[in-house]
Amino acid sequence: MAGVKFLVLLCTSLFLNVFFFSCYFLISTPPPPLPWLPWARLRLSWTRAAAAEAEAVAALACSGHGRAFVDGIIVHGFPTCECNACYAGPDCADLIPDCAADADSGDPLFLEPYWRRHAAGSTIVVSGWHRMSYRTTNGYISVELERHIRALHRAVGNAVEEDKFIVFGSGSTQLINALVYALSPDNATSPASVVATAPYYALYKSQTNLFDGREYEWKGITSEWINSSSVSTTNLIEFVTSPNNPDGLLHKSVLGGQSVIYDHAYYWPHFSAIPAPADEDVMLFSGSKTSGHASSRFGWALIKDQKVYEKVVQYMQVNTMGVSRDTQLRVLQLIKVILAEMEGKGDIFEFGYKTLKDRWRKLNEVVSSSNRFSLQQISPQYCTYFQKMRDPSPAYAWVKCEFEEDEDCAEVLKEAGIISRSGTIFEASSGYTRLSLIKTQDDFDLLLQKMVALVSKGGVSSI
Amino acid sequence: MAGVKFLVLLCTSLFLNVFFFSCYFLISTPPPPLPWLPWARLRLSWTRAAAAEAEAVAALACSGHGRAFVDGIIVHGFPTCECNACYAGPDCADLIPDCAADADSGDPLFLEPYWRRHAAGSTIVVSGWHRMSYRTTNGYISVELERHIRALHRAVGNAVEEDKFIVFGSGSTQLINALVYALSPDNATSPASVVATAPYYALYKSQTNLFDGREYEWKGITSEWINSSSVSTTNLIEFVTSPNNPDGLLHKSVLGGQSVIYDHAYYWPHFSAIPAPADEDVMLFSGSKTSGHASSRFGWALIKDQKVYEKVVQYMQVNTMGVSRDTQLRVLQLIKVILAEMEGKGDIFEFGYKTLKDRWRKLNEVVSSSNRFSLQQISPQYCTYFQKMRDPSPAYAWVKCEFEEDEDCAEVLKEAGIISRSGTIFEASSGYTRLSLIKTQDDFDLLLQKMVALVSKGGVSSI
Repeated sequence: MAGVKFLVLLCTSLFLNVFFFSCYFLISTPPPPLPWLPWARLRLSWTRAAAAEAEAVAALACSGHGRAFVDGIIVHGFPTCECNACYAGPDCADLIPDCAADADSGDPLFLEPYWRRHAAGSTIVVSGWHRMSYRTTNGYISVELERHIRALHRAVGNAVEEDKFIVFGSGSTQLINALVYALSPDNATSPASVVATAPYYALYKSQTNLFDGREYEWKGITSEWINSSSVSTTNLIEFVTSPNNPDGLLHKSVLGGQSVIYDHAYYWPHFSAIPAPADEDVMLFSGSKTSGHASSRFGWALIKDQKVYEKVVQYMQVNTMGVSRDTQLRVLQLIKVILAEMEGKGDIFEFGYKTLKDRWRKLNEVVSSSNRFSLQQISPQYCTYFQKMRDPSPAYAWVKCEFEEDEDCAEVLKEAGIISRSGTIFEASSGYTRLSLIKTQDDFDLLLQKMVALVSKGGVSSI
Repeated sequence: MAGVKFLVLLCTSLFLNVFFFSCYFLISTPPPPLPWLPWARLRLSWTRAAAAEAEAVAALACSGHGRAFVDGIIVHGFPTCECNACYAGPDCADLIPDCAADADSGDPLFLEPYWRRHAAGSTIVVSGWHRMSYRTTNGYISVELERHIRALHRAVGNAVEEDKFIVFGSGSTQLINALVYALSPDNATSPASVVATAPYYALYKSQTNLFDGREYEWKGITSEWINSSSVSTTNLIEFVTSPNNPDGLLHKSVLGGQSVIYDHAYYWPHFSAIPAPADEDVMLFSGSKTSGHASSRFGWALIKDQKVYEKVVQYMQVNTMGVSRDTQLRVLQLIKVILAEMEGKGDIFEFGYKTLKDRWRKLNEVVSSSNRFSLQQISPQYCTYFQKMRDPSPAYAWVKCEFEEDEDCAEVLKEAGIISRSGTIFEASSGYTRLSLIKTQDDFDLLLQKMVALVSKGGVSSI
């Protein structure tokens, strides 16, 4: 009898050992991120509580129509679910009736599912004493981040970076005025004229007007300055957005002057074919449209001329003393994942391209079933990144209302429960309006549903 | 014989049970950070690799004269140690001979040891899909961070926040021009005149001149505008820095006009007595000087007037679309720790005050042993935060060279191997220069050593 008890005790004890052993060494231990981390399997100390909190909050599912964050609004001790548009309730399960589809902003949440799938690699852990100084590895700029951005351009083949300087900005947004400042002549008798070709991204104008520096002046659309004798091209600063926001078309400088700012925010294989690496003197890129992290406020400029570069650096120093080093750390980790997964199953550009191609195709099918609306024409084009012909997958649909009585196209859509961005904001006709295709899947699904309803109302002009 | 083997096996197994059990539940598991996290003790999954990497890199000691960061420059697969000034070598163990003491910048690394001691509470873990959207809980601003900043002001008693709006900036730096913009009249016939009282923080001037907006103009030092008939005070924007940078004195507006920007970056118990909560219409605060995180580029303004507030919000939107949400997450966690530890053993203000009081006392002893130099006079003052008289603990020493032949005080110090910031940069006489006391302990120790050597050279004027 004592022998049996003994045996039961031994078996229980051995079982527990097997259990602990497997828990400790086998379950939930991803491979260490760097080869030199033999201690990656050791027990954690000061990071453990924050890591557990992050996992616990991330585990709140919010019905697939929202997400909870550690810095969310706390109610009864819990961060609350932050729901997608048109969803509500504590777990985002309730669809709000008669809710308008919001296709206004260029919020790049179409990439959120990508990062959910790559959670382990893209996570960062930041201690309280991490890099507190103004100075990082190279002044205000992280050497490793610069190195990885250059590697990304080389791997994607969308820009020639070898002979360019890099400056970081709090979004490409901050660099817009920094470049206008840097390209304005120092001692000119009259201010530089800043222009863009309509339809253009409205921030060029609103930012130039808000800062209203004595060295430059917003002068409207480029076409008015072609063959103009009143202004020499040496005193012109031209914005060229390629692919263009709103219509996704690839553009070149119209004036061919010395000072051209090429905004290549959308020149990534998500959105556009990459026929060849861009190689202009001043090029802007946006972290928001590369990895989808609009929140991080990160962008960069590639600049060929040293004097222009130095003026931008000076601007960045005086405006904000560089870009948040916390953000630089995060963007570095994201780019590491993008590079590691590139051309494999986890290729972010493949993911982004497939998502947007699918959305564009669906929207096109709906719109083409009627003659009331039309979309911009984008042809399939050879892409050096995918090494094949690719279908269009633009970030935005540039909708034209074809009926004469639909003078205000955004208003027509609004009456059908669709919030768009009117053509007038892009200094184009009100007969156009922009629909964002890069928001969440919920946003797009609702947009498509409303478009189907609108188009099915009838397609023949009443006039 | 079999019974003995059995017993040995059982004992071994039971011992292993105890070992695994203690490993699993007792070692290195800090208490969960939030009471609602019953799963904080569970095994980690997607955060584990990043947490292990952070701990491994943090474990590099760098001889106590440096630190390694996960985003440091990688050499042979390892992030390298980033050494304090005047230290070198792969582990920062080598003191560089004849190295100048750099007391130039206001890099607030005196608080780094504080955060090392509070590593567990202040760590953040950020997933790749964390808060990607432009929109956070309230437009570009984190509701929880705003709530915690207000709580911090109430707890410290250094500012009345109840009736003020809050705007965040990428450092208080960004908010300087945002406030100048917002306070400039919209449709005035002449630009607003921007002034400050010398000695003043040089960025007010350099930023106003760099942006060079048509609505305002830098007009030099305040005293020239007192009783001036050429400019009405309604069109003046006055900067008041209190405590002042460089001399740490508490200041009030000289002109008493409508548009005064109170820069209270140093109005925290680290640096200054808090006689009463500040309650001006426009007040600036800096994360860099509150928690010591200059790198995060975070600051905020408290603004009473709604129209001014709305113009600053508009400026922030157009300049950078708000402040990095990654930074907002980090600052939130830091302020949570500050609030939780306040008035206990881990009080950051007690730590900062003791550190700087000690530095100030030591420097004073050295300087007062000679008649060649003098420092600004700061008297002990009653502090409502510590509820007692407190000794001075300014961020900077404002050094005066007392000998006539020492016309360029910064140059005198430079010859003695001390890098300071010349009085001329603050639009004061070159007979003054500023020494930063808020850098690392290594920086201060070297500064003191060089000052001892300089002062011991003799104190009687040669003229």
